[in-house]
Amino acid sequence: MTLETLKLDLRDHIRDVPDFPKPGILFKDITPLLMDPSAFRLCIERLCGPWHNNEPDVIVGIEARGFIFGAAMAVQMSVPFVPIRKPGKLPWKTRALSYSLEYGEDTIEIHEDAVRPGQRVLLVDDLLATGGTMGAAIRLVQDLGGEVVEALFVVELEDLGGREKLPEVPTRSLLTY
Amino acid sequence: MTLETLKLDLRDHIRDVPDFPKPGILFKDITPLLMDPSAFRLCIERLCGPWHNNEPDVIVGIEARGFIFGAAMAVQMSVPFVPIRKPGKLPWKTRALSYSLEYGEDTIEIHEDAVRPGQRVLLVDDLLATGGTMGAAIRLVQDLGGEVVEALFVVELEDLGGREKLPEVPTRSLLTY
Repeated sequence: MTLETLKLDLRDHIRDVPDFPKPGILFKDITPLLMDPSAFRLCIERLCGPWHNNEPDVIVGIEARGFIFGAAMAVQMSVPFVPIRKPGKLPWKTRALSYSLEYGEDTIEIHEDAVRPGQRVLLVDDLLATGGTMGAAIRLVQDLGGEVVEALFVVELEDLGGREKLPEVPTRSLLTY
Repeated sequence: MTLETLKLDLRDHIRDVPDFPKPGILFKDITPLLMDPSAFRLCIERLCGPWHNNEPDVIVGIEARGFIFGAAMAVQMSVPFVPIRKPGKLPWKTRALSYSLEYGEDTIEIHEDAVRPGQRVLLVDDLLATGGTMGAAIRLVQDLGGEVVEALFVVELEDLGGREKLPEVPTRSLLTY
């Protein structure tokens, strides 16, 4: 690790955007981090860090920002990458799961051949807020027989209590607010 | 490059799915490629290949599958990564552009600070079909003053004539059908 990297603070590359997506919410914008190659690389290294020499069998990224981090991790560690997507986007045979949101519900899908029974699966997304999407993703993977070895995030908003919604799996975030 | 890599044919990792997203369409499913670490790595190497030692200033990936390839390329080449997204997803100040589809229209957005005037921009998506989305993405980048040095795809469906819709920029695809 270079001196330059040691001085890097990923937090300096997260932009606060007030009132997005609705009034009263202070959004954590990760796009400045993606635009700084040293910061993005450090972020991927930290996401992968605990798994070096103990790689998971599959990395699953959740649409859409989870694709950005999950795909880069998968190439870095030479591990298969699997997308979890919104309904109707995956072309082959899928398993779907619906879950409750604050208002209404949402659905996510995974390909049936994406995870085999007994595989160790790392799930990644950019943001842990209320935990609804990740909770559904965990159940989808477990439904295919996979063992979720980590639910991994770049940013966690602690006040929203999402971590408590994911009690059965190890949960890690690079940055908490 | 190892002997194993030399034997790899990316085409073996693309799955044909008939009648998706609608009857009569033979969809090219890239998820088997993502699930094979050697094939995914080779794919990223081929996407980056011509740009080694002549890196673009920015890699722009188009939501959502363009994120998978663009983010992995950006980390590989240490180049800033920028997402182009569907409306309402980017939190900061955006430029938007609407374009015609077969039925109706669609809109994409980019952050205003994502590309600076004079920057050399590589645009990447998984699929070149009719070229509508990439055409709009090119105009968005040019509108910010960027020079599009390549419109890059993993898969191109030649019969749909998308390439003719992108006459002003160099266009490259790894696999044509």
